[in-house]
Amino acid sequence: MRSQATEFLRALRQHRETGSAAGGAEGSVGAARALRRSARRISGSLHTFRPLLDAGWSEEMRPELAWLSGTLGLEHAYEARLERLLAALHRLSGVTVFPPRSGPSVPAGGPAASPAGAPVGGPVAAPAARQSAQQSNGGTLTVGAAKAGALLERQLTLARTRAHSTALQALGSSRFHAVADKVAVLASEVPLTPAAPATDLRPLATAAEERLTAAVAALPLVTAGHPYNAEALVHGLSPDPAPHPQDGPWHQVRLLLRLHRYAREAQYGDDLPVDVRLLAAGQALNRHRDASEAAAAAASAARTPRIAPATAYALGVLHADQRHEVEAARFAFQQAWQKQIVGTP
Amino acid sequence: MRSQATEFLRALRQHRETGSAAGGAEGSVGAARALRRSARRISGSLHTFRPLLDAGWSEEMRPELAWLSGTLGLEHAYEARLERLLAALHRLSGVTVFPPRSGPSVPAGGPAASPAGAPVGGPVAAPAARQSAQQSNGGTLTVGAAKAGALLERQLTLARTRAHSTALQALGSSRFHAVADKVAVLASEVPLTPAAPATDLRPLATAAEERLTAAVAALPLVTAGHPYNAEALVHGLSPDPAPHPQDGPWHQVRLLLRLHRYAREAQYGDDLPVDVRLLAAGQALNRHRDASEAAAAAASAARTPRIAPATAYALGVLHADQRHEVEAARFAFQQAWQKQIVGTP
Repeated sequence: MRSQATEFLRALRQHRETGSAAGGAEGSVGAARALRRSARRISGSLHTFRPLLDAGWSEEMRPELAWLSGTLGLEHAYEARLERLLAALHRLSGVTVFPPRSGPSVPAGGPAASPAGAPVGGPVAAPAARQSAQQSNGGTLTVGAAKAGALLERQLTLARTRAHSTALQALGSSRFHAVADKVAVLASEVPLTPAAPATDLRPLATAAEERLTAAVAALPLVTAGHPYNAEALVHGLSPDPAPHPQDGPWHQVRLLLRLHRYAREAQYGDDLPVDVRLLAAGQALNRHRDASEAAAAAASAARTPRIAPATAYALGVLHADQRHEVEAARFAFQQAWQKQIVGTP
Repeated sequence: MRSQATEFLRALRQHRETGSAAGGAEGSVGAARALRRSARRISGSLHTFRPLLDAGWSEEMRPELAWLSGTLGLEHAYEARLERLLAALHRLSGVTVFPPRSGPSVPAGGPAASPAGAPVGGPVAAPAARQSAQQSNGGTLTVGAAKAGALLERQLTLARTRAHSTALQALGSSRFHAVADKVAVLASEVPLTPAAPATDLRPLATAAEERLTAAVAALPLVTAGHPYNAEALVHGLSPDPAPHPQDGPWHQVRLLLRLHRYAREAQYGDDLPVDVRLLAAGQALNRHRDASEAAAAAASAARTPRIAPATAYALGVLHADQRHEVEAARFAFQQAWQKQIVGTP
């Protein structure tokens, strides 16, 4: 109990060290990412172990940390989204480097050719498409796909540039320095409640896990477990431009899964057993979020006035493709989560 | 052997009876379908048991039967394609009758709500969407989806009307009457080769099965067995307006599967054991064909000059959706086929 509180303190100090080190190298991408990550991590710990901490202090701290990680994250998010959408456009255009697969008649090889030949279109194709995206941007794309790519590039680059300025401003603001000071104080002295040193961390960590389990139980996992359930595209043409409401519970689970992971880290410290399944589930949910946002970006680009029909068509295909990715990510999460339940009796 | 030849004869006579009965009620949809089916079936038997039949006669007969079933099939194909695309447009617009599902926060119910609540979006949604498609066509769709639906309706109805006239002309033509006469002769006397009565049917049926097995072995079943492999959309934006070359081998397997089924029927006659898995595999391949053609129809509609961007966008989403259906059908086929191999040691 007490040792766990110390552990918690130690974890927070580690965060601070990463945080301040990153703050020193302000401006570099890696540092911003580290800063963002530690802000998110401290914020998560504050949330899970709230009863242990001085209430007024942590209520004041949390929104500041959320603001910081939110502001710092946007630039990277836009960059990753553009990359994802351009790679998808190339994949959808069948732009590949290796020789085309023989068509209808594949008499030679037969059964032996199937296992080796089959996955060519899958994992191997992705890096190839990305490579050719750099080599011959536009040349081999249809007019629509090329125009759609250019439109997305324009819109997302603009958004990224704005996010970059905002992040720079934030890092120079007095608001940021106040947060940094508080984190520095936190590293030396966590404002615990009087009862905290005697409190067991485990019930709080367990509560975080239970919140996660309850949220997962509310997900439509049965549907997600059936491949090609076409659920994610149900609102693909809906008049509502807002993010798909069906994605909400999944995003929520993504956050709860992260809180659970942080709580485990605070609880176990360096002795934390690696949970591969938790990792896989988290990755699936990250992919879910990325694809969901990329699909929304494609849909929103299609609402640009005066675009050519071919551009709009390509954006429609792209949107549906990313919604399909959303569905695939849910399936992957269901698979990972199911394994976890079987694995831990 | 000899009894099998009689069996074959008897099967052909049955075909003829269906065929002539249907020919008598010329014009009605059901009759045309029956006529088409029997033409296809005779043609298939001619193909599989070719060595038993007078070569000149069957070489002459086959293209005539193919012409007949092709001509008669087109009208129905256009009708089914339009229905499929309109249903998909409504599904994609989330047009449903039942109350909307509660969004991000589903605190009540929790674990208990999941098994019952989950499949709501799946099988239940489909008939509901179709129902509302009849009730409120257009009213709840976005402008783009409604316009896309109207465009598809115009184009496919025109194609269907043309196919209808062509079919009517065909049924009144001397070419049709010549085919009908030949089928009538066939019913009373199959022009077998002198060696035919002593020939075993089984090797020929086995050869048909082997052709099927070899074609299936050449399919990328390993990829198809991984849900969400995104293979079917690889050429979703390719500049080539031709049908997807990757679909060819699957269409080929569909035909070979049908020939195999007919050969089994001719071999076993009324004692034919029902093969549920063969049925499931065949249905998956039919769905594959339908979705592939529907996707092509959406892509081709998007190439109509002077359409609104919103229409093109909706057609893009629709195209991608149908290509997902193609991928889903391949997955279903892989599952059905895999079961078959496990089931028959």
